[in-house]
Formats: sequence, C-alpha cells, structure tokens
Amino acid sequence: MPTEIEKKVITAKNASIELASLGTELKNRALQAMAEALDRQRAEILEANAKDLRAAEELKATGKLSQALIDRLKLNNSKIEGMIAGIKDVINLEDPVGETLSALELDSGLTLFQVRAPIGLIGVIFESRPDVVPQIMSLCLKSGNSTIFKGGSEAKESNRAIFKILTEAIEATEGLPKGAFQLMETREEVRDLLALDAYIDLLIPRGSNEFVKFIQENTKIPVLGHTSGICHIYVDEFAELETAWKVCFDAKVQYPAVCNAIETLLVDRKIAETFLPKMAEMYLKAGVELRCDEASYALLKEKGLSELSKAREEDWELEYNDLILAIKIVDSIKEAIKHINLHGSHHSDGIISKNAERKRSFIGLVDSSSVMVNASTRFADGYRYGKGAEVGISTNKIHSRGPTGMEGLLIYKYILMGKGHIVADYSGKAAKPFTHRKLELKFKDINGKL
Amino acid sequence: MPTEIEKKVITAKNASIELASLGTELKNRALQAMAEALDRQRAEILEANAKDLRAAEELKATGKLSQALIDRLKLNNSKIEGMIAGIKDVINLEDPVGETLSALELDSGLTLFQVRAPIGLIGVIFESRPDVVPQIMSLCLKSGNSTIFKGGSEAKESNRAIFKILTEAIEATEGLPKGAFQLMETREEVRDLLALDAYIDLLIPRGSNEFVKFIQENTKIPVLGHTSGICHIYVDEFAELETAWKVCFDAKVQYPAVCNAIETLLVDRKIAETFLPKMAEMYLKAGVELRCDEASYALLKEKGLSELSKAREEDWELEYNDLILAIKIVDSIKEAIKHINLHGSHHSDGIISKNAERKRSFIGLVDSSSVMVNASTRFADGYRYGKGAEVGISTNKIHSRGPTGMEGLLIYKYILMGKGHIVADYSGKAAKPFTHRKLELKFKDINGKL
Repeated sequence: MPTEIEKKVITAKNASIELASLGTELKNRALQAMAEALDRQRAEILEANAKDLRAAEELKATGKLSQALIDRLKLNNSKIEGMIAGIKDVINLEDPVGETLSALELDSGLTLFQVRAPIGLIGVIFESRPDVVPQIMSLCLKSGNSTIFKGGSEAKESNRAIFKILTEAIEATEGLPKGAFQLMETREEVRDLLALDAYIDLLIPRGSNEFVKFIQENTKIPVLGHTSGICHIYVDEFAELETAWKVCFDAKVQYPAVCNAIETLLVDRKIAETFLPKMAEMYLKAGVELRCDEASYALLKEKGLSELSKAREEDWELEYNDLILAIKIVDSIKEAIKHINLHGSHHSDGIISKNAERKRSFIGLVDSSSVMVNASTRFADGYRYGKGAEVGISTNKIHSRGPTGMEGLLIYKYILMGKGHIVADYSGKAAKPFTHRKLELKFKDINGKL
Repeated sequence: MPTEIEKKVITAKNASIELASLGTELKNRALQAMAEALDRQRAEILEANAKDLRAAEELKATGKLSQALIDRLKLNNSKIEGMIAGIKDVINLEDPVGETLSALELDSGLTLFQVRAPIGLIGVIFESRPDVVPQIMSLCLKSGNSTIFKGGSEAKESNRAIFKILTEAIEATEGLPKGAFQLMETREEVRDLLALDAYIDLLIPRGSNEFVKFIQENTKIPVLGHTSGICHIYVDEFAELETAWKVCFDAKVQYPAVCNAIETLLVDRKIAETFLPKMAEMYLKAGVELRCDEASYALLKEKGLSELSKAREEDWELEYNDLILAIKIVDSIKEAIKHINLHGSHHSDGIISKNAERKRSFIGLVDSSSVMVNASTRFADGYRYGKGAEVGISTNKIHSRGPTGMEGLLIYKYILMGKGHIVADYSGKAAKPFTHRKLELKFKDINGKL
C-alpha cells in the first residue's frame, strides 16, 4: 500500500510526462493565470499569513523563534507584488525545452538529435520564506518539471494558501495536467520523501547550512545546494591598492550574512605593510572583528592598531556570516592558492592583482565555482550573473556548479530518426562506416514534417 | 591518521589541480608516451596476463569462474593494438578544457565567462576487463581529471602491469604532475573508497547490473552508470511492415547480451494479425524464446505457431540479456507509452510508424534517454553516437543521460573579470543597472592579454 506521500509523489511523477511535452504558449498562459490569481486573491494570502504571524509571535514570546525569522515570514502587499513580478519575469524567459543541443548524421537517412528536456520530478524543501513557492513553481512549470514542495511549519498557513491559489490557476488552464504540483505539510513526510529516490529526480533544499547538510546526508536523491560559503580574497604583491581596499571592504562589509561574503583575507607579505594597516582601519571602523595570524597581528600592532584578536587554526574553516574576518599573511601566490583549495568551500574566491601571470595562475589553479579577478566575491549570485531567476547556488562538481538558473532543471534526450536502419549493417566484416557529420539542423524544424 | 587508501585518494586529488590546468599539447605528449610504452612493453603485459589466466583456469576447474569471463580476461597482441589505437583516438579528440560556454558583460569592464573545466577526481571501479585502464586513463587525462582505479581481482596482475606502464609513461613526461592516477587492489579498499565523498567527485562503475546497483546503494558519491536496460519497440498501426520486421529482428537478435537490445515487443492490435505471425516465425527460427501475453498467444496459436510460452506479469520488468522476448498486444499508442514509462528502464525505446502524429507523441511522451523512430535500439552506444570514446551509459536524469563520452567528465567554472567592481554600487536606491549583454568573446582570446 502506498503511503499518502507516495501517492502524491506518484501523481506528480505521472503528470510530469504530460507537463514535459507542453508547448511554450500553453505554459505561459498558465503562468499568466498564476500571476492574476495572486493579484486577485491577496486578501486570502494576507489572512493566512496573519495566522502564521500570530503563532510565530507566541513562539517568539517563549524564546523559541527569532525576530529575523518573523521578518522573513511576514508578507505584505509589496512582497506579493514581488511574487507577481517574479512570475512575469519567468514568462519572459526563453523556453529551453525542445532546444536542439546537437544534430549529427550517423549515416544517410539516420539522424541523431540531442534535445533539451525537463528532468522530471523536483523536490523542493525550504524553511520559512513563503515567497519560494511562486518562484520555484513558475520556474519548474516553464521548464516542464513537476514539483513537490515542503515548507517550514512556521509558514504552514501562508504556504497552503499560496499553493492552493497557484495550483487552482494552473489546473483551470485548459491543456494543463492535474496533480503536477504537490504540497507536503508535515515533518514526517520529509523523512518519507527523502526515501523516494525511485520517483524524485532532484532535490533542492533552501535554508541554513545545517538544514542542507541534513538533507544531503539522508537521501540517495541528487541534491542541488550548498552547505557552506568559505570565500577568500588574495591581495597579490602586484595589487593596485585602491582596488584592493575597495573590493576587500565590499566583499566583507556590504552584506556579511551571505554565503558569497569573504571569511578570510590572504595578503602577500610583500604588500602587507603598505596595504594592510589602512585596510584594517577601514574594517575596524565598520565594526568588523579581525582575527589575525601571527604575522598580521604583529604588523598591525606595530602600526598602532588595537582591538585585534588572534586567529586559531579553526578560524580558517569557519563561516562567520557576520562582521568577523580572518586575516593571514602568505609568502606567495602558491601558498594562497593552496590555502584556498584546502580550507575553502570551492564557492567564490578572488585575486586582486595587475600581473597577468598571477591572474592566470589564480584562475587556473583555484578550484572554485566562481573565480573573481579584481571584483568582489559578492557578485556570485543568479540575478547578478544574468540568470533571470535563481534556483540555488551549487557547490556540486557535477550537473550544475555555482549560481544556477533554469538550466539546473534541465537535461536532454536523444532522438534517433531512421528509415529502417539496423545495427547489423554496421557490424562485422562488411560493416558500413558511419558518416558522423555535424548538422546545423534543429529538431523543431523537422518536427512539423515527420 | 589517514588510511593507505585515503593517502592515495588525497595524493590524486591534490594532483588534479595541476592536471586541470595543463595545456593540450602537454596532455597529448603524455598520451603519445602512453601509447608508445604499451607498444614497447607488450611482453610484460602478456606475461602478467598469463599469470591471471593460470589462476583463472584453476578457478574454472572448481566451477567458480566461467569461460566467458576467461575470454574477457585474456589479452593478446590484437587486444593490445586495440588499446594503443584507443589512446591515439583520444589524442585526436578536441580538448574540451578551457572552452568558453558563455560570455556575458555584467557592466562596462565587468565580464563573466563560463569556461569548461574538469570535474576533479574520478573513481573507476570495474570487473574483469583489463582494457578499461588505458581507455579511461586516456579519457581522464585528456579531460584533465585525476582517476583512482579498482579492477577485478581476477585481472589483478594484468591491471597492475598495464597501470604501471602507463603511469610511468605519464610521469616521465616533463610537466605532468605525479600521483594523478592511482590503483587500488583489494576488495576492502572499495568499501573505504565508497566512503570518501569528501574527495571523490564522481564514480563510474563498469560491470554487471548487480555490481552497479551495489555501488549506487553504498555511496554518497554521484554515480554515472546504469543498472538495467529494459528496452522496447512499439509497432504502431501505421508501421511499414518491412521496416518493422527488419528493425525488430535486429533489436533483439543482432546481439542479445547487451543493455540496448529489446526485451519486450509491443504490437498495436490493428496491425497484429498482418505483422506478428511472420515476425514470430523469424524470431523462432533464430532461436528466440517468445513469452506472449494472452492476446498474442491466442493469435499466434491460431496461425499454427507452436513453441510459445505465456508471459507472466514479472516478464514485463525482466532484463533477459538473452534470446528471450516478451510480446504484448496493446490497444493504442497511449497504452504502449504507459507500459514503457511504467515497466521500462528509461534507456532506449523505439517506435515503428509512418504516421507523423504517432511519431510526435512517442518522441514527446516516452521518458527515455534515447527514443528511436524507425531505427534499432541497438544504435544507442557512444561509438555509434559519434562520441569517439564511451565513458559509460547513464540512466541518471541529471548531469549526463544516455551514452556518455568525454562530456560526462566535465563541468565548468565561472571567471569574473573586473576592474575594482563592487556590489555596493549595484545595490540600494542609487543602484547601477546591470547591462547583461551577451558577448561572442572567448576566454582563450583574452587570456593572453590579462
């Protein structure tokens, strides 16, 4: 007997087949209906959200919930405007499904197309922000993927209201399959979900590092996500000082609570004396706690700076997500690269240098999904990278790496068009040769003339 | 204290950084050295192989090993020629590393490149065929990936000899890092290896379904492989009979022991009477055991055919890998598609039809990595698909799907080139807009002028 959650997952998986084959116009019509329904049913959403907020305030009173979480949970008209605008952005994104990635003539009359296709069924597990539902649902719909959602219990009422409004709008659109989008509400269901690797093709967890780590460690389903952002900037001997001060300040101070802010500053010994004292002053003035290695501590003390801490070995692998920065003086770019590859999280790391050879080494040898040259690590983000909408940031080494947009929800399918071709003719002593000739042909162009 | 196997893995991982940044010419020089060393040291390889064969013959005498396995294990001059030719093919493959996948101007002077990069450290676990070592080692070297190998114990001496010859050739090439390729020899090491997800980025198991399944179920490392090939052909009402007979025969009989041979033939009721009797005769003549559903059994009996079995429910999900075929008569293409998506392994499935609408439905709604139209499923293979060399066939829905060549060993890296750009300028009320202008620029072209 399938459980309730299995039933939901199987329903969504079955609907994914039909969803995968829908045309662009139909999908955009459903997206338009989603945007209009949100606009029309604001009162319902705000009412549900008020219930969540009341419960949250009670928990806050008992110390079980923070104000920051309440702020993320709280919806208002402007946040609903944001959701609607987000869906409209997705309408304007190009439809990637059916795009021909390659076409190859294997032999006369035998043509192989590689065509972009949806992955199938995506599981999205997120913490308190209810804005995730419209954002991910619109991206999944446009890319032809079924989705099963699980939100945080604090946002239960809001998620349920938004989910209901959106799925009703989709299912009322003629030609759209039923049941492609599903919502789970209990924590027990998550455990069940993690075991359903037979149906779910990809999991996208959105939340704290611990949360993502928990998901990764408890499922066989591939996970698109990242557990930590330990980012660095290395200030090379040949750095332009003004650039170094400006970029290093931005990378730590502009928004320290996020994964692409730096946690460690590496400074070449040859530039430390001219660069570091002013840099440290800028940081201290902005309220940054500095945790220095022996050499930088001694240098800054000598220059008359106080309020410094000493870094311990574990500081090189801490993600502060706060106004705290570890500082280390290194003897060479080689030492810097080694430090980054060993202690970092392969997320986003930068170099400040005017020297071509140094830039080339850093780009080539730093094993991170984003490598920045004379620019802030804070740029590593789906919106800034021009992806239209961000599915997540991945520190995986396969499928998708770094800031991931809709392309992370896609795979491909091979289509072989023949005229009675058989392998026997291409085997053995009298085997016909393959031509393997690249074609400019698009599958879309022949699809009408099958 | 790291174990022996951890030490090997860490050595290979460290070497992967340098390997990733090598130029094409250098890599080709190492490949050339590999080919020459194999050619020069044939005697050593054959001597080691003779030891394996002697041990295998002893095991065979006690019934613990099959003749088929001994055939796969046995090397001779012609198989060594094949290894050498394989390496030379890889020399001729284009170097994908460093290829620019996209270039985007974020703002004046701030350019984002997405550049192809190696994955890092690949683990290859294979059963008895020693030819896997040169094949995978050359592909991994060309794509800039470190590799750790574990072969079957029956081929221990052969693998060790080949591995030693190849790594010595690589490490004697000036500019190549030491330790990028490692060999494991004991079964205990495999267990240890499967736990090293902190270092190994991708596992490629090559062997029986049970073997691949075991790997998949016992590791958190992503696995590129497939556990089963339950492939179908659906003969539509509008099939051309000659095409149907020829292709369905080829798809089962040409080489039944492989994953892309069909296991079930689905026949539209409207064409069954004209198509099926002759088809069944062809199969029976070739020694194929036919396991028929009620309707096809009755039809074929009526036409005077004997030697038929009745299919049981479990036959729809069996991979025979042998001269056995399940046959089912279906009422519609819809039923055929549903059967394939439900019982198949999403590997390779075909339709025989002249009708455009039917072809379109089948292509759109069959969720398999290869969909064949009027062509044999047996074409689904890296060599036939023009990939030069096959890493494996994947039934995953992420990263790579279907026959996978060197592209399965690659990911990408983002390189952001700035001139002191900071995120603060693009945030808040006076935020500068991004230009997000697509560029035709290649990173290779600017790499010389950094």
